[in-house]
Amino acid sequence: MQPFLMIAKVGGNIVDDAAQLKSFLQALATIPHPCILVHGGGKVATQIGDKLGIVSHYKDGRRITDDATIDLVTMVYGGLVNKKIVAALQALGVNAIGVTGADANAIPATKRPVKALDYGWVGDVDSANIPIAVWQQWLMQKYLPVVAPLTHDGVGHLLNTNADTIAASLATALAPYYKVRLVYCFEKKGVLLDVANEASVITRMNRTYYQQLLNDAVLFDGILPKLSNAFAAIDSGVHEVLIGHANDIVQNSTETTIGTLITND
Amino acid sequence: MQPFLMIAKVGGNIVDDAAQLKSFLQALATIPHPCILVHGGGKVATQIGDKLGIVSHYKDGRRITDDATIDLVTMVYGGLVNKKIVAALQALGVNAIGVTGADANAIPATKRPVKALDYGWVGDVDSANIPIAVWQQWLMQKYLPVVAPLTHDGVGHLLNTNADTIAASLATALAPYYKVRLVYCFEKKGVLLDVANEASVITRMNRTYYQQLLNDAVLFDGILPKLSNAFAAIDSGVHEVLIGHANDIVQNSTETTIGTLITND
Repeated sequence: MQPFLMIAKVGGNIVDDAAQLKSFLQALATIPHPCILVHGGGKVATQIGDKLGIVSHYKDGRRITDDATIDLVTMVYGGLVNKKIVAALQALGVNAIGVTGADANAIPATKRPVKALDYGWVGDVDSANIPIAVWQQWLMQKYLPVVAPLTHDGVGHLLNTNADTIAASLATALAPYYKVRLVYCFEKKGVLLDVANEASVITRMNRTYYQQLLNDAVLFDGILPKLSNAFAAIDSGVHEVLIGHANDIVQNSTETTIGTLITND
Repeated sequence: MQPFLMIAKVGGNIVDDAAQLKSFLQALATIPHPCILVHGGGKVATQIGDKLGIVSHYKDGRRITDDATIDLVTMVYGGLVNKKIVAALQALGVNAIGVTGADANAIPATKRPVKALDYGWVGDVDSANIPIAVWQQWLMQKYLPVVAPLTHDGVGHLLNTNADTIAASLATALAPYYKVRLVYCFEKKGVLLDVANEASVITRMNRTYYQQLLNDAVLFDGILPKLSNAFAAIDSGVHEVLIGHANDIVQNSTETTIGTLITND
């Protein structure tokens, strides 16, 4: 039987809120099985960038990552956010190790090709070349890897990389070796039928139901990229994907009654 | 026979200079034996701190590390400087992994006790509790650990920590298992008899000669903390310490003719 592995992604809204982050990490520390945590960036990068006079440019909701911006997010995501989470987990007795995709070449990537738009120093994960043995060794050594949303291109450049995508790529790469539950932690109780009503959580979703919801256009825009990543992961062999509130879903990491569970059947 | 291990510390003057850093890392990449790199911070933290409105306070040449400053150095040393070095080494074919003392609890420390002066979030390395197995595993896995000058107190705080001291503490902790050469890389050719004359390198120094030089007061002030660390390391079982120019001494990592070699005899 494959060992269970939880890959949890926690977003910027939680990372930005010290009290919520603390509560989330306390819940995470109680999980008795192997785990990888991928964190997003949060608004702190924008705030620090503003002070440094770095102007953020956005296109289609994505930050264009110029030279100043990749330095900024390397500092903030790879340094400040990542190491604070690591120190907090260590204080909770969890042997966390903070990494980017450059460390141990753990997440190889390529700079996104310039087409209509040049995203700058943005990375597309090279999922097929993720070094499985590196992650297996870390998990065997009982580390909890804490992954910042940064990769590298192998020729010396760090690349700003979507944290949801990193989590899904790791889940996919490790799916042949672990029974992977990919967990997207955010500030809502799950995927909601009515975005204004936290009680309208969809508890279970397969692709047929997802397609029906898409056809009915009832899902809120913000959840669509997560669901797209989730189903791509499921299609690639990830056992299940859970989407829900940060505190709920890590506390019940082997239960399936909280949040929205996405499966293949 | 114990395996050879080089622990190199590279200072802020090299880290701040892109061309010198590149040259140093290229030399480091040619070394055929296990290596750990400890890097200093450099002036970039001060420059970024100035832009962020963080005022640096110094006492006895040491920065007082208040809340804003520990966040600053966590960003700059743990993020920007560390990850850029890692990405550059990866591009040179070296499997670097960037860590602070918090990662994998690799360098436990305690906040410096408040006596006449409160240094703030500054760490004193708890050398006796450095987890040897963690470092041995990383070296066995052919990683080149790149260590930022940050430790943690085990209760959730990161601590600003002198890079020379981290290098010496690691050298001491690993000395029973490796034939350790501790290398202090800086911008001079070695310890100079005449600080104005780069040709006046002292090629070999033992404690007797060191004491004589101290009595004669011929050494320049900047080298004294390095020498103090160096002899403390030698006294604790480190095989030898080499002090010299960044490029020279890593290129000749098993030669003893370049820089100042400090030994027990």
